[in-house]
Amino acid sequence: MAGMDKLVALVNSFASAVLSVGREVGLNITLNKAKVAQGIKVENICTVALIGVVGVGSRGTVNIMLTKDAFDNIINAMSGGMIIPQLGDDVSMSVIGELSNMIGGRALVQSALGTVDVTPPQLIIGENIKNVTKEETGMKSFTLPFVLEPVGNLYLVLSFKID
Amino acid sequence: MAGMDKLVALVNSFASAVLSVGREVGLNITLNKAKVAQGIKVENICTVALIGVVGVGSRGTVNIMLTKDAFDNIINAMSGGMIIPQLGDDVSMSVIGELSNMIGGRALVQSALGTVDVTPPQLIIGENIKNVTKEETGMKSFTLPFVLEPVGNLYLVLSFKID
Repeated sequence: MAGMDKLVALVNSFASAVLSVGREVGLNITLNKAKVAQGIKVENICTVALIGVVGVGSRGTVNIMLTKDAFDNIINAMSGGMIIPQLGDDVSMSVIGELSNMIGGRALVQSALGTVDVTPPQLIIGENIKNVTKEETGMKSFTLPFVLEPVGNLYLVLSFKID
Repeated sequence: MAGMDKLVALVNSFASAVLSVGREVGLNITLNKAKVAQGIKVENICTVALIGVVGVGSRGTVNIMLTKDAFDNIINAMSGGMIIPQLGDDVSMSVIGELSNMIGGRALVQSALGTVDVTPPQLIIGENIKNVTKEETGMKSFTLPFVLEPVGNLYLVLSFKID
C-alpha cells in the first residue's frame, strides 16, 4: 500500500472501530462527517486516551479525546448508571481505559494492515487539554468529530508519519 | 531478555537519553534518584510529549512531562533566549517537539533492544494535567523525576506492558 492509502486505511479502521464498539457498549454515537478535518481541531477536552501505533512504514498516535459531557455519558452507558462519573477516579478511569482498549483492538482486527501493532492506551486528564502536534515534521493529522446523544463530543485525532 | 529486564533496560535507556540530550542542549539537569518511584507521581504539569514504544515482547508509552518552569527553562536554553516561551505557541512547541524527538531517538540508539520502534512525539498541553493509567491491566509504570536548575521539573513516566 502506498503511504497515503495506508493512512486512509488507518483513519477508516479507527473511525469504524469507534462507531461499532461505541454502539455495542450502548452509546448513541454518530460521526459528524461534515466536520472531518485535516489538522487538529478539538475543544473543551478533559480526558485523552492515547494509543501508539507502529507498523511497517507508518508510525503515529491515535488520540481519543472526550469532553466532560462525553466522559459522563460514556461512564453512564457502560456501567448502566451504576458508576457515578468522576474525573480521575479509579473506577471511572478504568471504564474509559476499557473502551479505549476495545477501540484499539477492534481497529487492528478490522484494518487488515497486517503488521501494525498498538500500545496499551495511556490516559491523561486535565483542564483545557489541547493537542498541538505540528504537521511540519512530515506528520499528517486528521480530526474526526463524533457526536454523542444526548450530549457530548468524542474526537478521534490521528497523527501519523508515513515513511 | 526476560520481561522485567527489558523494562529496566527501557527505563535506563530513556533516563540516560534525557540526561545526555538535556545537557547537550544546555540544560542543567539532574535525576532526583531518591524520588524515582513505581507508579505515576507528577504534579503541576502543563505539557506532555508522549512517545509510543513497540517492540518484540513490550508495548507502552513514554511521557515527558513538564512543569511551566521547566517549559520556560527549556525554551530559553534551546533558543539561547531568542524565543519567548509561550504555551501552545507554534515556535515554542516546535522546540519541545524537537527535544522529545532527540530523546526518543537517543534512547533507541542506546537501548540495544534491537527491534523496538517509536512513534513521533505527540504534544499535549493543558492545565493540571495528570497521567492516570492504572497498573491493574498488567501495565507497569515508573516515574523518574528530573530537576532543572535554576527552576523546573521534568518527569519521565514510562508505562509498559510486558508480554
